Amino acid sequence: MRIAVDAMGGDFAPREVVAGSVRAARDMKDVTSLVLVGDEHAVRGELEGFKGLPDKLTVHHASEVVEMGEAPAGAVRRKKDSSISRAADLVKQGEADALFTAGNTGAAVAAASLKWRRLAGVDRPAIATVIPSRDRPFVLIDAGANTDCTPRMLYQFAVMGRIYSREILGRPDPRVGLVSIGEEEAKGNETTRTAHRILKDSPMNFVGNVESRDLYEGRVDVAVSDGFVGNVVLKTSESVAHFFARWIRDELSRNWLRKAGALLARGAFVTMKKRLSSDAYGGAPLLGVRNICIIGHGSSNARAVYNGIRVAQEAIRHEVNHLIEDELKEQPE
Amino acid sequence: MRIAVDAMGGDFAPREVVAGSVRAARDMKDVTSLVLVGDEHAVRGELEGFKGLPDKLTVHHASEVVEMGEAPAGAVRRKKDSSISRAADLVKQGEADALFTAGNTGAAVAAASLKWRRLAGVDRPAIATVIPSRDRPFVLIDAGANTDCTPRMLYQFAVMGRIYSREILGRPDPRVGLVSIGEEEAKGNETTRTAHRILKDSPMNFVGNVESRDLYEGRVDVAVSDGFVGNVVLKTSESVAHFFARWIRDELSRNWLRKAGALLARGAFVTMKKRLSSDAYGGAPLLGVRNICIIGHGSSNARAVYNGIRVAQEAIRHEVNHLIEDELKEQPE
Repeated sequence: MRIAVDAMGGDFAPREVVAGSVRAARDMKDVTSLVLVGDEHAVRGELEGFKGLPDKLTVHHASEVVEMGEAPAGAVRRKKDSSISRAADLVKQGEADALFTAGNTGAAVAAASLKWRRLAGVDRPAIATVIPSRDRPFVLIDAGANTDCTPRMLYQFAVMGRIYSREILGRPDPRVGLVSIGEEEAKGNETTRTAHRILKDSPMNFVGNVESRDLYEGRVDVAVSDGFVGNVVLKTSESVAHFFARWIRDELSRNWLRKAGALLARGAFVTMKKRLSSDAYGGAPLLGVRNICIIGHGSSNARAVYNGIRVAQEAIRHEVNHLIEDELKEQPE
Repeated sequence: MRIAVDAMGGDFAPREVVAGSVRAARDMKDVTSLVLVGDEHAVRGELEGFKGLPDKLTVHHASEVVEMGEAPAGAVRRKKDSSISRAADLVKQGEADALFTAGNTGAAVAAASLKWRRLAGVDRPAIATVIPSRDRPFVLIDAGANTDCTPRMLYQFAVMGRIYSREILGRPDPRVGLVSIGEEEAKGNETTRTAHRILKDSPMNFVGNVESRDLYEGRVDVAVSDGFVGNVVLKTSESVAHFFARWIRDELSRNWLRKAGALLARGAFVTMKKRLSSDAYGGAPLLGVRNICIIGHGSSNARAVYNGIRVAQEAIRHEVNHLIEDELKEQPE
């Protein structure tokens, strides 16, 4: 397996990206080639810190970078020599089997969508992201690639999310839910009501409409929504979690009594912080394109990059794309 | 001012509703009549626990109740003698100036929408709910009354939310934001992109698109969205907050060291719980109808009911509806 890594993508690039890639190249036997794509000088500078680098780790120069705040589609078109564009080119040209980036999400979606073909039967590629909940994480699809979706697209997202949940997260028969406001079939907007009917008639293990409460109580393995709503769920969850974490810290440092208490109970906060961290999940795949593209969080550290490369490897191994095309050969009207 | 209270609405009705109403009748001088609408036997039973009840507190019998899980519109049409229907009737017949309910939100929206007229210039009534954030609370409109909205409706929601923020929450020139996924004007779905253009050209203090992060950092006083997205923001926030609170409690009781720490730091958790409680805000108005309808949380206790009646009183006093009609006389195309 050959992985192209966008060495310049993410808040801590290239340092953390290079560090995670070095570890992945050393540990993962099945990875036969790992190409760091980005400013050769900067990347080689980071590599100097490591001894005895494996031969399979190479550098592919790209002179430009799409910044985190840039408008994605325009940036990808304009910056032909950006690290994300070049990494997508390597995959397109058959020189790599998968791409990992922790950079601008929109740019990754744009690069993969513009340069690669879509899988047969897929109207739009979608981002499948893994979110921690009470017992075990669930997959949210689409997490932000498509703002306006048809019921048919939501059906395809369900199929793709289900395959991902089964193959990568190991759920035998994933429970699929449709994000809505109210559990009854009649609840929701026009698009979700039609999607509900389609999903109900499909052979999937469809548990119906789910609200946010259901997601965090672990009622589903796959939560389906358009990218607007999915992104709102994702960002609201992150914001409230951060708001809470900061607030707790502030309140606990308000006087010496609370500080002492917080010190005694420290283990609780360490456990929580660890489980909330997205590092373990590594990255969210863009599903529905004819190659593998894994998108890491902008704040990815070396561990997150390592796990993102691991996810890319598993997506290749499980032939997720073949399974998706197979299942979408026949679709409801 | 005469207020009709749905005595049977809410998880703790009629007990807490009656208790909050008794307090309101005693404290609020401007409330000249407070009608408890619901099962006479049950309501009088609760009233027996209080001594020296003011004369302005009366009971209006209604034999039915719309339950929390019932499909709203159907239930309101079918149960003509339900407490929420009767309370809305009293307002319609001019026997009360405002309605408060902590019952089924959809039923309240349906009763007010079906029985009352809309304000001139309003296409759809919307729920304005107050959400705590870092510094001070913000208004989210629509929190769930309308799932499919036009850009014009979103503009009207902004006008109504702004008046509510200014008159009831006392913000001199409320900052209005449009809930979207990305701050740039081009981000969002078709509806929000058009709404963005309309709001930008309006004389409002429009700060542009806002993401969840901005909401909880206190960047806006009014957050505008359709009812589907608004409800997702609201429910996700509540779910993550509950998930967090329960998780902290679990982690802190895992061993004696943590328990001791939690005990020392207890003040921090008490403060947080108090500020997170929605009791202080009392209820969310349904704006855009020709009367006042305040909808409390299903879990409202006596204090929340008391504050809900206070909000109803303030909405009447500030003539919110006149201001809304005035401002919507001229609307952008």
